[in-house]
Amino acid sequence: MSVPHRPPTNSLQSRRSPLLVFAGQSNRPLAQAICDNLGVPLGRSETVKFTNDNLIVHYEESLREGDVFIVQTFSTPVSDAIMELMLMIDAAKSASAGRVTAVIPYYSYARSDKKDSPRISIAGRLVADLLQEAGADRILTMTLHAPQVHGFFKVPVDHLSADLVLSEHFKKCVPDAHDGVVLAPDAGSIKRASQIARRLDSGLAMIDKERLSDTEVRPRALIGDVKGKTVFIVDDEISTAGSLVETVNIAREMGAKDVYVAVTHGVYTGPAIQRIAGLDVTQVASCNTVHVPESKIEGANGRLAVLDVAPLFANAIRNIHTGDSVSTLFS
Amino acid sequence: MSVPHRPPTNSLQSRRSPLLVFAGQSNRPLAQAICDNLGVPLGRSETVKFTNDNLIVHYEESLREGDVFIVQTFSTPVSDAIMELMLMIDAAKSASAGRVTAVIPYYSYARSDKKDSPRISIAGRLVADLLQEAGADRILTMTLHAPQVHGFFKVPVDHLSADLVLSEHFKKCVPDAHDGVVLAPDAGSIKRASQIARRLDSGLAMIDKERLSDTEVRPRALIGDVKGKTVFIVDDEISTAGSLVETVNIAREMGAKDVYVAVTHGVYTGPAIQRIAGLDVTQVASCNTVHVPESKIEGANGRLAVLDVAPLFANAIRNIHTGDSVSTLFS
Amino acid sequence: MSVPHRPPTNSLQSRRSPLLVFAGQSNRPLAQAICDNLGVPLGRSETVKFTNDNLIVHYEESLREGDVFIVQTFSTPVSDAIMELMLMIDAAKSASAGRVTAVIPYYSYARSDKKDSPRISIAGRLVADLLQEAGADRILTMTLHAPQVHGFFKVPVDHLSADLVLSEHFKKCVPDAHDGVVLAPDAGSIKRASQIARRLDSGLAMIDKERLSDTEVRPRALIGDVKGKTVFIVDDEISTAGSLVETVNIAREMGAKDVYVAVTHGVYTGPAIQRIAGLDVTQVASCNTVHVPESKIEGANGRLAVLDVAPLFANAIRNIHTGDSVSTLFS
Amino acid sequence: MSVPHRPPTNSLQSRRSPLLVFAGQSNRPLAQAICDNLGVPLGRSETVKFTNDNLIVHYEESLREGDVFIVQTFSTPVSDAIMELMLMIDAAKSASAGRVTAVIPYYSYARSDKKDSPRISIAGRLVADLLQEAGADRILTMTLHAPQVHGFFKVPVDHLSADLVLSEHFKKCVPDAHDGVVLAPDAGSIKRASQIARRLDSGLAMIDKERLSDTEVRPRALIGDVKGKTVFIVDDEISTAGSLVETVNIAREMGAKDVYVAVTHGVYTGPAIQRIAGLDVTQVASCNTVHVPESKIEGANGRLAVLDVAPLFANAIRNIHTGDSVSTLFS
Amino acid sequence: MSVPHRPPTNSLQSRRSPLLVFAGQSNRPLAQAICDNLGVPLGRSETVKFTNDNLIVHYEESLREGDVFIVQTFSTPVSDAIMELMLMIDAAKSASAGRVTAVIPYYSYARSDKKDSPRISIAGRLVADLLQEAGADRILTMTLHAPQVHGFFKVPVDHLSADLVLSEHFKKCVPDAHDGVVLAPDAGSIKRASQIARRLDSGLAMIDKERLSDTEVRPRALIGDVKGKTVFIVDDEISTAGSLVETVNIAREMGAKDVYVAVTHGVYTGPAIQRIAGLDVTQVASCNTVHVPESKIEGANGRLAVLDVAPLFANAIRNIHTGDSVSTLFS
Amino acid sequence: MSVPHRPPTNSLQSRRSPLLVFAGQSNRPLAQAICDNLGVPLGRSETVKFTNDNLIVHYEESLREGDVFIVQTFSTPVSDAIMELMLMIDAAKSASAGRVTAVIPYYSYARSDKKDSPRISIAGRLVADLLQEAGADRILTMTLHAPQVHGFFKVPVDHLSADLVLSEHFKKCVPDAHDGVVLAPDAGSIKRASQIARRLDSGLAMIDKERLSDTEVRPRALIGDVKGKTVFIVDDEISTAGSLVETVNIAREMGAKDVYVAVTHGVYTGPAIQRIAGLDVTQVASCNTVHVPESKIEGANGRLAVLDVAPLFANAIRNIHTGDSVSTLFS
Repeated sequence: MSVPHRPPTNSLQSRRSPLLVFAGQSNRPLAQAICDNLGVPLGRSETVKFTNDNLIVHYEESLREGDVFIVQTFSTPVSDAIMELMLMIDAAKSASAGRVTAVIPYYSYARSDKKDSPRISIAGRLVADLLQEAGADRILTMTLHAPQVHGFFKVPVDHLSADLVLSEHFKKCVPDAHDGVVLAPDAGSIKRASQIARRLDSGLAMIDKERLSDTEVRPRALIGDVKGKTVFIVDDEISTAGSLVETVNIAREMGAKDVYVAVTHGVYTGPAIQRIAGLDVTQVASCNTVHVPESKIEGANGRLAVLDVAPLFANAIRNIHTGDSVSTLFS
Repeated sequence: MSVPHRPPTNSLQSRRSPLLVFAGQSNRPLAQAICDNLGVPLGRSETVKFTNDNLIVHYEESLREGDVFIVQTFSTPVSDAIMELMLMIDAAKSASAGRVTAVIPYYSYARSDKKDSPRISIAGRLVADLLQEAGADRILTMTLHAPQVHGFFKVPVDHLSADLVLSEHFKKCVPDAHDGVVLAPDAGSIKRASQIARRLDSGLAMIDKERLSDTEVRPRALIGDVKGKTVFIVDDEISTAGSLVETVNIAREMGAKDVYVAVTHGVYTGPAIQRIAGLDVTQVASCNTVHVPESKIEGANGRLAVLDVAPLFANAIRNIHTGDSVSTLFS
Repeated sequence: MSVPHRPPTNSLQSRRSPLLVFAGQSNRPLAQAICDNLGVPLGRSETVKFTNDNLIVHYEESLREGDVFIVQTFSTPVSDAIMELMLMIDAAKSASAGRVTAVIPYYSYARSDKKDSPRISIAGRLVADLLQEAGADRILTMTLHAPQVHGFFKVPVDHLSADLVLSEHFKKCVPDAHDGVVLAPDAGSIKRASQIARRLDSGLAMIDKERLSDTEVRPRALIGDVKGKTVFIVDDEISTAGSLVETVNIAREMGAKDVYVAVTHGVYTGPAIQRIAGLDVTQVASCNTVHVPESKIEGANGRLAVLDVAPLFANAIRNIHTGDSVSTLFS
Repeated sequence: MSVPHRPPTNSLQSRRSPLLVFAGQSNRPLAQAICDNLGVPLGRSETVKFTNDNLIVHYEESLREGDVFIVQTFSTPVSDAIMELMLMIDAAKSASAGRVTAVIPYYSYARSDKKDSPRISIAGRLVADLLQEAGADRILTMTLHAPQVHGFFKVPVDHLSADLVLSEHFKKCVPDAHDGVVLAPDAGSIKRASQIARRLDSGLAMIDKERLSDTEVRPRALIGDVKGKTVFIVDDEISTAGSLVETVNIAREMGAKDVYVAVTHGVYTGPAIQRIAGLDVTQVASCNTVHVPESKIEGANGRLAVLDVAPLFANAIRNIHTGDSVSTLFS
Repeated sequence: MSVPHRPPTNSLQSRRSPLLVFAGQSNRPLAQAICDNLGVPLGRSETVKFTNDNLIVHYEESLREGDVFIVQTFSTPVSDAIMELMLMIDAAKSASAGRVTAVIPYYSYARSDKKDSPRISIAGRLVADLLQEAGADRILTMTLHAPQVHGFFKVPVDHLSADLVLSEHFKKCVPDAHDGVVLAPDAGSIKRASQIARRLDSGLAMIDKERLSDTEVRPRALIGDVKGKTVFIVDDEISTAGSLVETVNIAREMGAKDVYVAVTHGVYTGPAIQRIAGLDVTQVASCNTVHVPESKIEGANGRLAVLDVAPLFANAIRNIHTGDSVSTLFS
Repeated sequence: MSVPHRPPTNSLQSRRSPLLVFAGQSNRPLAQAICDNLGVPLGRSETVKFTNDNLIVHYEESLREGDVFIVQTFSTPVSDAIMELMLMIDAAKSASAGRVTAVIPYYSYARSDKKDSPRISIAGRLVADLLQEAGADRILTMTLHAPQVHGFFKVPVDHLSADLVLSEHFKKCVPDAHDGVVLAPDAGSIKRASQIARRLDSGLAMIDKERLSDTEVRPRALIGDVKGKTVFIVDDEISTAGSLVETVNIAREMGAKDVYVAVTHGVYTGPAIQRIAGLDVTQVASCNTVHVPESKIEGANGRLAVLDVAPLFANAIRNIHTGDSVSTLFS
């Protein structure tokens, strides 16, 4: 995946000046990497917790008329991340920013995208409304749980895909990837799996699961054939890796040769790292939309790889800022 | 400080009186059937086209404080159906209706639910916004193309499922349905297919398709096994039946024994009826969310069945009106 | 009517660049003529009807930050025209257009501008709300049925008048127009008639009509004097020409010498062309706000003239784009 | 004009209880008369001007869940009347009123209903938006300057007409009114004049005026025939009576026999009373939508009559409260 | 299906039935106490954290048409408390609750009520907007940091005061309270102190503080006289008790005899309990708007008292539910 | 207080061109002074009262894309001032102004900032909402009654302080101001007094008042010590000067040496000038946020001084226009 060269810096100032990138506390390494790709410094801001646990954010430089991008991913603690982002958006607007784009590499509430039981909130829509109420003029995000979540926003959304990053990664790891099979862990990920399969020119398979209760799910069958094949498991996120363990086990039971895993968002909570360390796979890769501390990488027994998506975000931000097409960037 | 006991709430008139059901022009037979189920008359209203092709709607009875339900499906001509519905909603609100529920058995624009190419409208969200701008206080609909479309609406939505109707229909047609296989025509319908499969306790299979261009799609493979099995093809809608023909052909090629088809919305446009008449299937069934005229049924060579969902809509309307839970209705 | 010369092209790019003009399906010849006057190409976009009669629009070039004008007149099929326009507006906004102006030469729903019977919609207001909900930032239109309809919009409206075009046309046809009488077909058009009369320095008369029912109207009297005079009938639109035939007949009965007709919007539906072909008038003229196909002009027995308003729209678009005053353009 | 008898009081409490009528300072006699017709006391509230000229309103009784009607006409000082009304609406809403209806017998800003010169406000729409922003749930008004102004409001409007009151008044004054001619002072009032003419079964005439500048208007001609006839001049309002004097003079010059004048809103500002006292007419009548103090009636030399519309407003309020149709009241 | 008869409507349930009280996780003991006062059970709902730290809330009973009150205080973890409340509001609205009142005993963000440094958010207003966007129909809260914060909400707010509770508490502790002095710890609390002083008929004093930086504040002087007097320190909240220690020290230095402390919100974070345990005061009292666990009370060396405000909240909820005046409750 | 020199004119045109300053009728001298400071002409507009007391405003130059500032203070007649401002905002927006900033030197309704009695409007919030509904994009104001009122606006607010002007004025009048005492007339002004005291490095005192009824207030005590000291009374506004007379009297009774008074807004209504003329003070100073006519200055017996804040407003407008920080201007 080659990213076009950065244009001369002065063209960055073309429409709205200046281009300003700030970050909340949730993933400052990614924000810094994006800024490095853009060739601009990360904006100075401060977030403090009052003694009563209230957050306050403060920008330490003028934002008047600026084209402001705020990078904040929705990782633990998620509620703090969302509140901080909304405070930053609101403060930016009332400080007369010209435009505010919320850059949310991992929009975790996208998983709450439908009413699968009565009397719950479609939180993916609610959070979208809240961000817009706070003043977000546009959104830049990656790999929403379902593509329909895009439509939860009324403001323009640029929705980046990690598919190219993931499939290029597989190809680099496994030269004859076209002989393998992409395995979708459930019906919800079949479309993503199918797209990766086409990029690899490989086979496709799926595990059919049955929801027994709100929290319990049981695999019914593996649809398709993985016997003797290199299996590529793809999904949008891994949190505790419980579902991943099960998927790998089924693949193994059905005779898979090697297993590679790649997801967009590596959340890795609870026993995830420990499970991955003991997993019968060659490698688990995920993008840096969620920050993975060095300690987790070390704990994963060499099985964890992190793929850098900062260049994609930087390119998208540059094109949004200059008014160029984002859709033509990564075809 | 004691608060008196809750009085019984089992009356139709309790909260907002009266219950009023009106209908646009798109599916008056269904509206009449719903009213028959409810035991109320269909409200009197008139829709006229001016000579300049503008629509005008006129209610012929008072709506003041009424609990108004307007039944309008989005079938050909769809733009007229939507405009008429919005005019009816607006006229009802300005005539002081207490609450207006848009009853949209087939919300066709749900198919435009994501941005699969740049510079298009997510029309499913746009139409949702327009209906709310026109004044809709709530929505009652059935089998949205994707369950996430529910979240395109800010007002409460009751989203009925035809799964029970379809699976009961299959069971009635094929007593040993559990030996069959439910076949999803593409990745988008795999979740629905999986749910029906569980209801039938049957197998599951899927056709993996590849989008070559905006309009061209090519099947890559049938994932799973249908050989010698009774195949149940399920989908949310049939329009020209082009995709259906292909699915049936693949199932046949792969050795399916009998093929049954059931979808929620039978739109049947263009060559659909002719194709179905010549299709190598036992039966094609769909619900009456879209009106299927007698002539089409006759033209389909005995292969077309219509399943009545008026009782489901009537029950939902009754419970919405009395404030009882809709979710407990159809479990 | 002379239109000032087009300024050098580079000034067109001054504020928001680029100036982009797109068109729906309803009047592409006018849109092309406007573009020719502006010296810009008509933007590339595509509108398709899905097999389920849903519309989808797709822009084939980037709109980021562009100053977008979408030309769409409300002629048959009107509901499709409105839906297509709203889809185009929404798609433009979500594709990050800088500003979207809906150019609606004939805003047909302006006729639904008041509540002349209970429990109807003031559709002129509803459609205004819908266009704004879809994302229209401003409106450019011509000769609204009543000038108050301007106030139905919250966003800025530039409301062009065809009065100068119509009166210049009369003067060219009838050199001694000041000896004639402008005849208003009903009370609703008396203000327009009065303004034209002043431009011609001619007399004024009116037909007093009585509404018998929603659809039936009866003339009571001709107020004023047309005997032996050249009569200029002016109105905002002609659809079936039924009312026009009656007006002409009354004028003839009252002794009119010659009769000329000119309206802004020539909708010409149903028997209109046939009626005009047989009408006892010298000429019927209308502007190209609604496209009149060659076949209709031929069918009208030489009586139909079309007046070009593309230069007015082009000038207005240019001034909106460059931020110059539109009001000073056509005095 | 007979108004149907008041139904038993207990039915007044049916939907939202209690029915509460309050009044601002602009026309308390009308508010009291409306309450007398309804059989309810005028609600207790107080409006004070602070020493810095700010207004404060205070309700002296609970409004929780009440169906609140606030009577306020837009007469001098108009800005105070509007501010007071908005403060009353806002205070009612935040005091948990169930519904707030603004009863505005004379909505003066309806005259600012179009953009007849550039860079002005369509104030009739602006004030409508402000009232809704303040919290008005519905509007009850009478004889808007143009019927389209109804559409400036998004909330339901009940728009009463004084036509019946005015025409019954003429018939009572002049038994053979059908031999007379209704004269519209300008094109803007021709529709109203035409409707009154039909009620009287009389003739119709109009004065054609020419606007020379923003403030200067010149009559061009009287269209129609008033010679030897009793003339009924009708309009929506009289303020300084300057235009009325001119209209009467023209009618007299053209040979009118007797002249009667009746308008909905008798604003009577500046030299109005003095002019009417010296006017060559039999009588000038207006409704009590604007309060006319006794001193003015005495100053008008016996020529001024006031027509009571309190029963119409009371009936409308009653029907709005009970949810009955308002449109069927006065046919 | 026949329609049952209408039940009588003369009960507490007449308007909106039933009254439903739910609670988030932040202060369930208070919610239970409120329910006990009301004689209704606490509604069943469940809040779960997904493995990716997202919250999900689920109501376990029907809310259709219910008058729903959700009790949630803003105590640590505050961001989770706010997110949970918004999810509960949204879920209630989409489950067709008739009205949703957010009961927020301690609205902590009220402290962020002004722009005392540039480029910050007025978070008190932002959170108010978010709650309303989530769907809150009204708010019930106690002792906002400044009374102006009430105006940050557009929906009706009932703002309870703890003044009566606090002053009655002082009177009970110190029979001759009128000989004492109420001491405001800073200018911001002088109004509250002055009101308590009037209730006690006591003296008043204040500490004048100087803000050296965003986080550092220095006392300049004690305005007034506390020598030999019983001193009552009142404030809206205590968090780390750092400021309290300082205030007590100054009072002691200036010769105070006994010192009593009472605040509305006892947040008690960080070293608060330890500081209070060693504080030279007779007692520190606070209301149960924030839950104080038994362990803290024990740790405070017998100096901590908790005052119960559940009856005040219960009364307010009852009156809101029945539509009675809340303002007349506690005079 | 020195105000930085005006930058070269061409930099004024940088972002949005042109910078346009207009004024309503309430304080044209200040508007002219601001324009003189900015080096731009005061924009041409006209406001007329129709004979029915309606206002109409008309801009006499194009505003298309302009960066429009409208100066209007809220002085008697306040309702007219607010209505005129809203009409000017609306007319500017619909004339396609690029941005509209309402410059309100004295926002009088800020005094209605809380609910200190039931069933009143928090008018400071209501008027904020109305201005935004009319189309205000941002606000520039000075010394709001309470700083929280800032949060009543959703759009950005620049809130200038007169503290520096007032304290510099005191220092110029009284070289050894640090030996004096700043006296707050009530608890509401203690924060402002405390800030001035710090700027003067002087003492602080306060009068504790007791509200007996809505209109009656009684002083309870003077907290602090003024004996033999020069006293500086500061407040946000003076209207009838009744409260001021009382404050001066108490200060005198308590042994004050000299008394100086300075407030931001000199409203001076009713008996104010006469009272000041007879007041036992050295001088009363106020800013020109409200226009003080020459006659009042003469009537005040040489005791009235007016401080010019036009340079502060001009600087703020310049920085808003060019996108520079306003907060860094006056530190």
